[in-house]
Amino acid sequence: MTKKTLIQIHTRIKPFIHRTPVLTSQLLNDMSGANVFFKCENFQKMGAFKMRGAANAILSLSEAERQKGVVTHSSGNFAQAVALAAKQLGVKAYIVMPDNAPQVKKNAVRAYGGEIIESESTPAAREAMAYKIQKETGATFLHPSNQDEVIYGNATAAMELLEDHPDLDVIMAPVGGGGLIAGTALAAYYFSENCKVIGGEPAKADDAYRSLNSGKIELNETVNTIADGLRTNLGDRNFLIIQKHVEKIIRVEEDEIINAMRLIWERMKIIIEPSCAVPFAALLKEKHQFKNKNIGIILSGGNVDVKNLPF
Amino acid sequence: MTKKTLIQIHTRIKPFIHRTPVLTSQLLNDMSGANVFFKCENFQKMGAFKMRGAANAILSLSEAERQKGVVTHSSGNFAQAVALAAKQLGVKAYIVMPDNAPQVKKNAVRAYGGEIIESESTPAAREAMAYKIQKETGATFLHPSNQDEVIYGNATAAMELLEDHPDLDVIMAPVGGGGLIAGTALAAYYFSENCKVIGGEPAKADDAYRSLNSGKIELNETVNTIADGLRTNLGDRNFLIIQKHVEKIIRVEEDEIINAMRLIWERMKIIIEPSCAVPFAALLKEKHQFKNKNIGIILSGGNVDVKNLPF
Repeated sequence: MTKKTLIQIHTRIKPFIHRTPVLTSQLLNDMSGANVFFKCENFQKMGAFKMRGAANAILSLSEAERQKGVVTHSSGNFAQAVALAAKQLGVKAYIVMPDNAPQVKKNAVRAYGGEIIESESTPAAREAMAYKIQKETGATFLHPSNQDEVIYGNATAAMELLEDHPDLDVIMAPVGGGGLIAGTALAAYYFSENCKVIGGEPAKADDAYRSLNSGKIELNETVNTIADGLRTNLGDRNFLIIQKHVEKIIRVEEDEIINAMRLIWERMKIIIEPSCAVPFAALLKEKHQFKNKNIGIILSGGNVDVKNLPF
Repeated sequence: MTKKTLIQIHTRIKPFIHRTPVLTSQLLNDMSGANVFFKCENFQKMGAFKMRGAANAILSLSEAERQKGVVTHSSGNFAQAVALAAKQLGVKAYIVMPDNAPQVKKNAVRAYGGEIIESESTPAAREAMAYKIQKETGATFLHPSNQDEVIYGNATAAMELLEDHPDLDVIMAPVGGGGLIAGTALAAYYFSENCKVIGGEPAKADDAYRSLNSGKIELNETVNTIADGLRTNLGDRNFLIIQKHVEKIIRVEEDEIINAMRLIWERMKIIIEPSCAVPFAALLKEKHQFKNKNIGIILSGGNVDVKNLPF
């Protein structure tokens, strides 16, 4: 990876993504003691940063590969991202979803033109089904987080944020599979002088925190967190980048996530999903260390059922 | 009023307001058939456009008047706007609120430093109490909508929108007391070539629609609409401006308001209050006439109880 390659990637995906706005809130600044710049990927196409990685991954394929389509397994934002990016590029998308996935998520994928293949809901069953489709169709498998092209696409969110605000001291992002924070860390490394990257992670799915401490990938025993986008295990590609370029990971409790989510809803008047509130919860939790600093936060997504809120 | 005066007013209030962003949504464009530019006054200080009128009204006062404070009666956004604008300018604010106003609204006014005086909840009792405070303290009365300085302050939202998007064919705004649409109409008159202004009004509180038809101010018999910010009667200052500069008013039903509100929440990921959804509901209702046009919509505010949603 080079700085120049990331710039090329950004140029390449621009027609397929929004340049999302950066919002600030005096009230949340007063509350946190920092100057916080929220990069609103909840306003991204299909409602999450995942659009960036999906678009880049599909754009990386050869013409021959594109003709055979792409396949992924996801019940979350990556399913919609692949379906929409594939549609924009005229590529067939096979989306493996667990048979118990909410109807609203299946409808969203279908609305973007993705073909849904149902599987049992265990990770093993979903992976087996995706593998079967690869074999049968020749489609290229796209991983939701642990794949270089996806990571590089994700990096463009922080690249834009640093372009708008080059004087950031820290950028914070949530940590699930690790694809967003890995991309963010690469962006900060190549496009800032000395901007640190810090992750936020639910204490109830803290595999990345423990992995950083032990120096090897640790697994989640349980993932009983409201931050449903962060339940996945840390991927090995991402772990290498995180070890090298991420300052640290701050863990937050469930009530801290809900409180941060509600603050952003009520004070900023924007809709974010629970996973998205985790970095701001981490900032509030350890605000002494961020006092008077310029903090960028990647608001990762806004796909939440507004009829089923945790507050 | 002159174009120059409005520019001076805008310059004068700038330090006390946000320049709010203008957002767009491809999905809502596809759905409506128009190119819609949403001016996000839900992101304004205290969460509504009312901040503009309140700031301008207080800035219009002489030093002697400022020392005696300001008084208004409101249980809604104007109460918070006056409290916050007065606080920023070091002016005492007396806010008459009905004794049955929600605690959360009283808390918001107090948090901005306003002194709450409770009254019975009838309009007559509230006006009498405001008059009593005027007499006792010498404070200047500020009307939530039907006052020139408030109207001119409100005009600055559409001025900014036209500065960002000079090629708008139409600007739409909700109609309650009429202060926002009157200001919007003045802005379009002075700062555009041929931009029309169209109002959206709940069918269940359609006094402005009927007033435009009959040529005299008509009253609401009942105001049983979810758009609580639009229940007030049309003011006479506003009516004069509306008669002269507003193209027409489109009425919408309750289910159309709720549907438009939900679309903006779910598709744009921003929080708006029911009143705020009325112009977009009007656009959807009569979309044939807006086809392929550039439509500005003033999203008036975002102060809503997220625990008590109509969907």
